[in-house]
Amino acid sequence: MTTKVFGHKSPDTDSTGSPIAWAWYMTEVLGQPARAALLGEPNTEAAFVLKHWALEKPEIISGVAEGEKVVIVDTNNPAELPEGINKADITAIIDHHKLVGGLETKGPIDITIRPLACTATIMYDLMGDAVAKAPRGIKGAMLSCILSDTLEFRSPTTTAHDKEVCAALAADLGVDMGALATAMFEAKSDVSAFSDAELLRMDSKEYTVDGKELRVSVLETTAPKLVLDRKASLMASMVDVAKEDGADQVLLFVVDILNEEATLLVPNDFVKTVAEASFGCTVTGDSVVLPGIMSRKKQIIPALKV
Amino acid sequence: MTTKVFGHKSPDTDSTGSPIAWAWYMTEVLGQPARAALLGEPNTEAAFVLKHWALEKPEIISGVAEGEKVVIVDTNNPAELPEGINKADITAIIDHHKLVGGLETKGPIDITIRPLACTATIMYDLMGDAVAKAPRGIKGAMLSCILSDTLEFRSPTTTAHDKEVCAALAADLGVDMGALATAMFEAKSDVSAFSDAELLRMDSKEYTVDGKELRVSVLETTAPKLVLDRKASLMASMVDVAKEDGADQVLLFVVDILNEEATLLVPNDFVKTVAEASFGCTVTGDSVVLPGIMSRKKQIIPALKV
Repeated sequence: MTTKVFGHKSPDTDSTGSPIAWAWYMTEVLGQPARAALLGEPNTEAAFVLKHWALEKPEIISGVAEGEKVVIVDTNNPAELPEGINKADITAIIDHHKLVGGLETKGPIDITIRPLACTATIMYDLMGDAVAKAPRGIKGAMLSCILSDTLEFRSPTTTAHDKEVCAALAADLGVDMGALATAMFEAKSDVSAFSDAELLRMDSKEYTVDGKELRVSVLETTAPKLVLDRKASLMASMVDVAKEDGADQVLLFVVDILNEEATLLVPNDFVKTVAEASFGCTVTGDSVVLPGIMSRKKQIIPALKV
Repeated sequence: MTTKVFGHKSPDTDSTGSPIAWAWYMTEVLGQPARAALLGEPNTEAAFVLKHWALEKPEIISGVAEGEKVVIVDTNNPAELPEGINKADITAIIDHHKLVGGLETKGPIDITIRPLACTATIMYDLMGDAVAKAPRGIKGAMLSCILSDTLEFRSPTTTAHDKEVCAALAADLGVDMGALATAMFEAKSDVSAFSDAELLRMDSKEYTVDGKELRVSVLETTAPKLVLDRKASLMASMVDVAKEDGADQVLLFVVDILNEEATLLVPNDFVKTVAEASFGCTVTGDSVVLPGIMSRKKQIIPALKV
């Protein structure tokens, strides 16, 4: 039986590239037939990465069958996985997020979670010497995942080990990391094709903070102006998105990758209060710039106060 | 701040020895001060192992403070850990049981779960070359953990890798594995000091099977007669233990390590039905012998039908 390997819904580069890398490793090195899958359309950066490394786009699946063999990567959160995931036969989990609880397995399986910036870095370690055997596209996918998740080492989630592995892959491939990262971030910054609601949901996670349901959305971009020019309609759309998704409020952080700062939209007094309480800033208009804020995981979520 | 390293409640050899080994590794190799702890009195085998390798008995703790740094080994089940465990600062989990869900961490941490027989085998791999630096007592504790959890390689949970690591440790220490295992199993078989209720709770886990709460107790022994001679009073005690612990029924499997079989006590028609449905046996008296049954995890739990 072929094992399906997938990451989270709304796949970014790590949730697109890491499943491809691990499916290669399982099939070609471990001798366990496996195939990457996606839980939705990859984002524009991930689509660029697939094309750049001449990788086939994995099949997009909407669910898993009872008893189907699956490997979960880049998440351990049932809310980011197909319904009924616990009825599948989960054979391994490789992730770099906090343990949220909720996934259950039928027997003891391989679970590797590490506080690193990127799933691909963990896979590089798990593969050991076998990495040398990986085709160019697999190494390229892993390189791209690390550049993406670390925002080319600008994100505070970056560890020395992520850098080390990224540099080793780039040297092996003879690739200019800076040029690749620039092209990837440009692809991610092209948001013209997306509606406001799609932008708000593109890289978004729900959190309960002091009893309030917050949908915390992040848009990482090298061209923040493209997003901020749509500020008024994005703020209007937040009301509908929050309602449809059962959230109290959408928070949109537009992360300027090159200037290493985030702009938070402030559509109402509730968000103004949250911004000032969480980040110690003073809000005067309908947005506020937060210098140095790059990471939802490390900087935004731990700071949020309602 | 010193990190506390502990395993599950009712500590057996793995939940006593593995914390000691990992606390050594954290303190001496990683430079992170750590101390082993126990969530109760170690069983007679674990107490023998401590004495045999001249290891100090870790402090017995009954709870953890909010924000206290802890490493959890040999379980990922909140029911087997102190109340409020999710309020502690869990910095790592090393385990070989199925993921049950319920533990939550504040940020991404190191989690390593492997389908191996013993936590100490996983630690041996994680320690890498540093194992060579371990003092005799630490290597001895790890060796004893593997012999205990594999029942000297008789348990079907045993993998080739557990055997390999165990043999490497024994060779390094110049220890006769068979003689050590025999002494350990004899220590475990000395149950004279325990009341019936204590015996029923000594190595016991609760499971919900088809809506029934079952407390599944296992006694691994080289002297099953010592236990079976107490059959009548053990069966009488089951009623009180089930009531006090909110279970519908206690199932006691007396595992004969040397003859590789289990005897299940059959105090009533409910257990008779469970035994016949689960193991395809025919029950004629107040106990039934189940040839080859050694492992709760691999053989008993997956088979249980109510």
